[in-house]
Amino acid sequence: MTPAPNPNNWLLLCRTVRFGDTDAAGVMHFHQLLRWCHEAYEESLERFGVAAGDVFPTPAAMPEVALPIIHCSADFLAPLVCGDPLAIQLEPRRLDPGCFEVRYSFRSGERDVASGLTRHLAIRSANRSRCPLPAAINRWLEAASVSQGIRPL
Amino acid sequence: MTPAPNPNNWLLLCRTVRFGDTDAAGVMHFHQLLRWCHEAYEESLERFGVAAGDVFPTPAAMPEVALPIIHCSADFLAPLVCGDPLAIQLEPRRLDPGCFEVRYSFRSGERDVASGLTRHLAIRSANRSRCPLPAAINRWLEAASVSQGIRPL
Amino acid sequence: MTPAPNPNNWLLLCRTVRFGDTDAAGVMHFHQLLRWCHEAYEESLERFGVAAGDVFPTPAAMPEVALPIIHCSADFLAPLVCGDPLAIQLEPRRLDPGCFEVRYSFRSGERDVASGLTRHLAIRSANRSRCPLPAAINRWLEAASVSQGIRPL
Amino acid sequence: MTPAPNPNNWLLLCRTVRFGDTDAAGVMHFHQLLRWCHEAYEESLERFGVAAGDVFPTPAAMPEVALPIIHCSADFLAPLVCGDPLAIQLEPRRLDPGCFEVRYSFRSGERDVASGLTRHLAIRSANRSRCPLPAAINRWLEAASVSQGIRPL
Repeated sequence: MTPAPNPNNWLLLCRTVRFGDTDAAGVMHFHQLLRWCHEAYEESLERFGVAAGDVFPTPAAMPEVALPIIHCSADFLAPLVCGDPLAIQLEPRRLDPGCFEVRYSFRSGERDVASGLTRHLAIRSANRSRCPLPAAINRWLEAASVSQGIRPL
Repeated sequence: MTPAPNPNNWLLLCRTVRFGDTDAAGVMHFHQLLRWCHEAYEESLERFGVAAGDVFPTPAAMPEVALPIIHCSADFLAPLVCGDPLAIQLEPRRLDPGCFEVRYSFRSGERDVASGLTRHLAIRSANRSRCPLPAAINRWLEAASVSQGIRPL
Repeated sequence: MTPAPNPNNWLLLCRTVRFGDTDAAGVMHFHQLLRWCHEAYEESLERFGVAAGDVFPTPAAMPEVALPIIHCSADFLAPLVCGDPLAIQLEPRRLDPGCFEVRYSFRSGERDVASGLTRHLAIRSANRSRCPLPAAINRWLEAASVSQGIRPL
Repeated sequence: MTPAPNPNNWLLLCRTVRFGDTDAAGVMHFHQLLRWCHEAYEESLERFGVAAGDVFPTPAAMPEVALPIIHCSADFLAPLVCGDPLAIQLEPRRLDPGCFEVRYSFRSGERDVASGLTRHLAIRSANRSRCPLPAAINRWLEAASVSQGIRPL
């Protein structure tokens, strides 16, 4: 059930389906998956060494550049129940100098169970005009691109 | 800010952005929109006269047919802040005898602010095999199709 | 099932239990109740005439005084299932010049089903030091106090 | 920032405040804490060796005994922002043969930041009548009681 060891563990994250994620049909309620996607994106940045406060606003400081989601989607391949382990593989990709997306593949044991996508646009926090991606995000995108090129099949 | 009166008010629903829907960027956190989509779908069925227990499981009874979401997506056109009023227009559509989708258009005042999509598959609750849509859902889909053909531009 | 007419409808609010509020036990998942409490508090202020932006931060403006919750609780008396109608009665009360609490009583039809409590402290947004409640909140608290003294038994 | 090693790591759990947990005031939105409490309770059972399906319903099986929450509360001592690490200490305690509660202490670094409480009642799933706690829960309660007696101050 545990995924194979991966030297790039900031691109392969784990979590467990919890009781509050389910609905009265007994399975994961659909929009929880998009919460998991965003939390995996945050955890990936954190493990790569990007501090949360460099990307996400706090009362102490608003980063100059915000990265709002302009599009998201999800596909559900199999029902997930309370206690199911999840391995989440991230594939971040720059679309243009001011935009990137992240694809998320969810596996539970040997099964592909779901996939997700979030697309993010860089805007200046002060006036919401488009701008280039922050340097920290660019480093993360470049490292992800290299890691995925060499990962074992 | 109030939408024009609509004789098919089970296809045009209203709500308000609440504080807990926002994040530290000060605007609606993206996946809340998909929660609103599903709640609008439920409210639409309810206003059309379909009882929740006919479609959604309760401890007392599991409907013979479940309608899990197999795909969803959302597009975000403008930031939404606490207190913003929302008018949600639903466009349900049958894709085949065992599958339908609902498109959701979100307006706040005169602005188009977001859109959403949920795609639902009919399966037998007992064994999760595909099956035809329940009669109540078919009536709702047919009425929606007629209503939208005659609504004023 | 509908509550008796009430001239102070900013103290008596309605909503419906939705599918996403339930868990795999088939009933409302406990912490959703506290979300409903906060949304009822916001709706009550709105109906009383207090604009959301006067009390809750938006990207455009941070109110001088914030009202963070320092304590909350809930009691669950009966299970709630998808589709259950709820009538929520609010009883706001000032505790001292810089602190108030709101008690929430949830009924579904003729049944008392749950109660909730949120306690709020006034602090200056700039430095988080204690301060008096904002004037708008004081007006709302005073009006609630009067309304509840004269409401029919 | 990392808590000291603890041989009973099923009573001391870690997580991080995520962006979606915050609201437009820039800090954790209050009711997320109760979600974290329940997830910590589930993780604690899991680490102790109790399978999720023995306690929580799935479509495959409804445990004979359900453990609904009849009361919860939380106290908030300090604001939490995106990226803050949390260490959660659990103190489960049997109240009577059919009822237990769990106290949750939240620390972030050296600060006490919040506490929570959930109280659970054992009922037969079939008819919701009161009954004794399941054996697996009793073992977990007893082990927790012993562990806490010997943990270093």
